[in-house]
Amino acid sequence: MQRLDVETKSKHYEILVDQDFLDLVPAIRGLDKDFSSYHVVSDDNVTPLYQREILDALAGFGKPVHGVTFPHGEKNKNLSTMEAIYQALIENGADRKSLIVALGGGVAGDMAGYAAATYMRGIAYIQIPTTLLSQVDSSIGGKTGIDFNGYKNIIGAFHQPELVYINTATLKTLPRGEFTSGMAEIIKHAMIKDAAYFDFLELERERVQALDHEVLTSMILRSCEIKSQVVSEDETEKGNRALLNFGHTAGHAIERLMDFRMLHGECVSIGMVAAARLSAAEGGFPPAEAERLVRLLEAYGLPLAVPDLSAESVYEELFHDKKTMGNTLTFALCRRIGDSYLSKGTLTKAQILEALDQVMERER
Amino acid sequence: MQRLDVETKSKHYEILVDQDFLDLVPAIRGLDKDFSSYHVVSDDNVTPLYQREILDALAGFGKPVHGVTFPHGEKNKNLSTMEAIYQALIENGADRKSLIVALGGGVAGDMAGYAAATYMRGIAYIQIPTTLLSQVDSSIGGKTGIDFNGYKNIIGAFHQPELVYINTATLKTLPRGEFTSGMAEIIKHAMIKDAAYFDFLELERERVQALDHEVLTSMILRSCEIKSQVVSEDETEKGNRALLNFGHTAGHAIERLMDFRMLHGECVSIGMVAAARLSAAEGGFPPAEAERLVRLLEAYGLPLAVPDLSAESVYEELFHDKKTMGNTLTFALCRRIGDSYLSKGTLTKAQILEALDQVMERER
Repeated sequence: MQRLDVETKSKHYEILVDQDFLDLVPAIRGLDKDFSSYHVVSDDNVTPLYQREILDALAGFGKPVHGVTFPHGEKNKNLSTMEAIYQALIENGADRKSLIVALGGGVAGDMAGYAAATYMRGIAYIQIPTTLLSQVDSSIGGKTGIDFNGYKNIIGAFHQPELVYINTATLKTLPRGEFTSGMAEIIKHAMIKDAAYFDFLELERERVQALDHEVLTSMILRSCEIKSQVVSEDETEKGNRALLNFGHTAGHAIERLMDFRMLHGECVSIGMVAAARLSAAEGGFPPAEAERLVRLLEAYGLPLAVPDLSAESVYEELFHDKKTMGNTLTFALCRRIGDSYLSKGTLTKAQILEALDQVMERER
Repeated sequence: MQRLDVETKSKHYEILVDQDFLDLVPAIRGLDKDFSSYHVVSDDNVTPLYQREILDALAGFGKPVHGVTFPHGEKNKNLSTMEAIYQALIENGADRKSLIVALGGGVAGDMAGYAAATYMRGIAYIQIPTTLLSQVDSSIGGKTGIDFNGYKNIIGAFHQPELVYINTATLKTLPRGEFTSGMAEIIKHAMIKDAAYFDFLELERERVQALDHEVLTSMILRSCEIKSQVVSEDETEKGNRALLNFGHTAGHAIERLMDFRMLHGECVSIGMVAAARLSAAEGGFPPAEAERLVRLLEAYGLPLAVPDLSAESVYEELFHDKKTMGNTLTFALCRRIGDSYLSKGTLTKAQILEALDQVMERER
């Protein structure tokens, strides 16, 4: 088992990476809190795979153990599903000393985390992320929340977990496309902070794709470390946390225009190609490095362009992004692989359109 | 204008007490934050009284100003009203830099505070409490929340305000019964922490009841000081914060058994009489001091007994209180006026029944 310490303003916690669930109970015991009951929250895809095993393990504490299952998918990440979770917690006797276990992907983490943030004004929770994306992304930063009337994550709270327990074996049951999608965020971490990590991702690609536990562990921990470092420098998201948006400004616009039919990581991959073009246009980012990024994304099976959209429509959509304040677009860009910065409003419309044009499929 | 500093784990803020709203804008300016828009949330009782005046004052900032009105009463303190508030915030363009103004009594504070705690994962808010109870009680401690499926405040968050602005003139529009109800909490503050404050409440009763600004200001600030002192010693409610429950264990039980037809402060008044009896039964609380408490409650127009209930039924209800963990009842009791402690499970059923019997109306 490998571990990483995460330090936040409000809490210190550990991320553990293992290849089974055998150390989960000892890890919870190590928190040294006397939880009154355990409530494992997962969706109807993940419940049949892992909920029983987790409940059986937790039963060892000799306290009440309950499973709560909600319908899967972003479309159910709303107040009505949240009400069902609250109701289950009440019926199952959850109190201020109970522990919620968020088991599953990003939606489970967001929802179970938000339930923990707001039930009885906040109770403890741990995360057991079972998708690559949630393991390297949403398990860090303490963001929880739900969608409301079509607005993504507009209702939520910052609530840090007591512990994050990652079992790499869960990636074996993950649909291949979702694994690939998760790789986009990982490549992003290398792009914004760590050239050596980029080399590692090039070098170890075959073992990563073969789900080799040892390589996955190094990769997940390095990504968690980069994300937690960026987040801890900026816990309330006013400044450098925006570096994590590398590839996301255009990526989010494409995701919305495609009506969420493409996976998040696929859109981020395309967005990173555009961001590399912008980084070159603003000056400095070497064409050879842009080419290395493109080759790596391709090698991991990620798309480089989007079908059926125009550069103009993506450009318009950039201004609907909630991260855009006023009329100035902020892009996270790279000077070199591993060296990123925030660019505020210096790029012209023509430059942005040209970069977007490069990721329109008809152009390739 | 008088002010009190409140120090919490997560934030430092000021409580200002004045006799008009003239210093509200300077006070917000003093926060030195560049709010992008202002959203005044109040219920349909308070909106016609004060919302226009507050909106007009805030318009001086030259930023968008919006009023949000929700239907009054505890019965509307639920998720469905909260959804309407979220929707109004979205439609009115509230963003991460907006300020929410909670204008009104405890329900407005709880709801607008919870909206602020959860909109976009938490935005800034200030409180303008307009009832005596909210001025001395709910404006301190950062508790926000709503009821859910009949469970009071079971959904919520701790979220500290940027500022609390109290205008004592709002007490002139407050129904007399609600003013009296607020006095119960104030007398409680004196009972648990400050014998000299108890003397003050005896001595200044006429001026308090005449709503004299100077005396009200001293009283409100002293009560805020006591509450914030108890709360800051124990921000997550595990220990001494429970001293604030003096009179509330029996009071809550009576409130529920009377189906919330009696005001909170009335039930607390009766609960304090019972707590005084218990304090005597456990040994030490002098009968003469119990008598002083009874006389003071009576002088302020508060009830000393409850009609149509039996001591047995109240006793049973004590164990349904969410603050009761397991089967051990914790009572906040007094050694002397101004000197309180927590009594855990040492009182017998017979002693508790006897004390409750003293506050059953048929007995008097």
